[in-house]
Amino acid sequence: MKLTLVGAGPGDPDLITVKGIKALRTADVVMYDALVSPELLEYCRPDALKVYVGKRRGAYSCMQEDINPLIVHYARHYGHVVRLKGGDSFVFGRGYEEVAYARQHGLLVDVVPGLSSSYAVPASAGVPLTTRGLSESFWVVTGTTKDGKLSADLQLAAQSSATVVVLMGMHKLPAIMAAFTNAGKAHTPVAIIQNGTLPEQRTVVGRVDTIVDRTEQAGIDNPAIIVIGEVAGLPNVTEHVTAHVNQSGL
Amino acid sequence: MKLTLVGAGPGDPDLITVKGIKALRTADVVMYDALVSPELLEYCRPDALKVYVGKRRGAYSCMQEDINPLIVHYARHYGHVVRLKGGDSFVFGRGYEEVAYARQHGLLVDVVPGLSSSYAVPASAGVPLTTRGLSESFWVVTGTTKDGKLSADLQLAAQSSATVVVLMGMHKLPAIMAAFTNAGKAHTPVAIIQNGTLPEQRTVVGRVDTIVDRTEQAGIDNPAIIVIGEVAGLPNVTEHVTAHVNQSGL
Repeated sequence: MKLTLVGAGPGDPDLITVKGIKALRTADVVMYDALVSPELLEYCRPDALKVYVGKRRGAYSCMQEDINPLIVHYARHYGHVVRLKGGDSFVFGRGYEEVAYARQHGLLVDVVPGLSSSYAVPASAGVPLTTRGLSESFWVVTGTTKDGKLSADLQLAAQSSATVVVLMGMHKLPAIMAAFTNAGKAHTPVAIIQNGTLPEQRTVVGRVDTIVDRTEQAGIDNPAIIVIGEVAGLPNVTEHVTAHVNQSGL
Repeated sequence: MKLTLVGAGPGDPDLITVKGIKALRTADVVMYDALVSPELLEYCRPDALKVYVGKRRGAYSCMQEDINPLIVHYARHYGHVVRLKGGDSFVFGRGYEEVAYARQHGLLVDVVPGLSSSYAVPASAGVPLTTRGLSESFWVVTGTTKDGKLSADLQLAAQSSATVVVLMGMHKLPAIMAAFTNAGKAHTPVAIIQNGTLPEQRTVVGRVDTIVDRTEQAGIDNPAIIVIGEVAGLPNVTEHVTAHVNQSGL
């Protein structure tokens, strides 16, 4: 009875780790999310059970409360369950809740980290989160808090010299930009990257005071990553420096 | 003439990505750092030139100013240069400096992100950087700034509710803990993980007011990652949830 959490990375199926593939190859059951590339399931044994726990029938997703007992159920009946999640399981991935529940129910647990979109998506648009002389730290914040309000940390982040990365923040973009304007940063560069690392990747670049309009004009929406800071204004930022190759066997 | 920056990940050679391996297989020259596992070089063609640009003859490392022209030299004479760096190239990796220099000199540039130690090492000790109800953001700071002082961002980070991750901060641990104590956080949990994801991984857990003594008693030193926040106090934090398997062919 074992659970392995595997981070699938930001989108491009070749951005999974070797360790993640090894876990998939030994899985009896794979429970996967909406953000996971279907090509990754080809690493599984043909007889492995593949269970989709993402969006279905108009619901946003399976409730976490439903997924936890399902993991235990499958582990008891089949053996090794791999939980394949987009990005990294421990960066806004609710992975710890699954780990804690599984341990309470007697499962062995292993965690294989995945590439978090928070920095891998900016990198794929040529934006480094840190660069000497421009930024010596970065702060990753979610735009969607449990109570629906703008995170208090975001107000503080706006005052810092950190590069600020906002995940799941597109529907609050005007409020986020207002927080930075209030902190005297109306002219700070902003980059927004949609569908990062995928062939459909699109980037829009502007400043705190222009990015809302530009994003609307470009029709950029979720899933997207917002990067606020001087690094977003570096040359070549809109160029796609990550080539997108088709997945082929190793 | 091409440069591909490849992030090798935090230490365990199986934490490289498929895309990183594909780049290594097509490299004419690989320039690699001290923090890179030698096993990764086995993915290279036998005739590929392997150039070590890490610590040598007592010097801390090659100077960045020496590495940039070397990249261009090798690309001109051999074709495809892979720059293999520990962690991720764009997270305190000075990767952007290499990208900018190479582009100025006419090289095509590709970037393959790697697992950053900032969250992958905490994950390997069972510490999630975010968890509902405990932390909705994380801030990654370097302990070593250009001028040798404690980063101003670290003072601000101490006041936030973010999980704070400090890289390269062990020699400033008492000063960092003093900043958190001054922010009223003497009892906040702290975890320090040395040699994360490697078989020699060791973790020490305490609080802001106890961690300096505990770290000294345990003899924990660089390379280590410091995590400050409630997530560092979660159950099972000292257990190694990432199994360390030997690398074998895929």
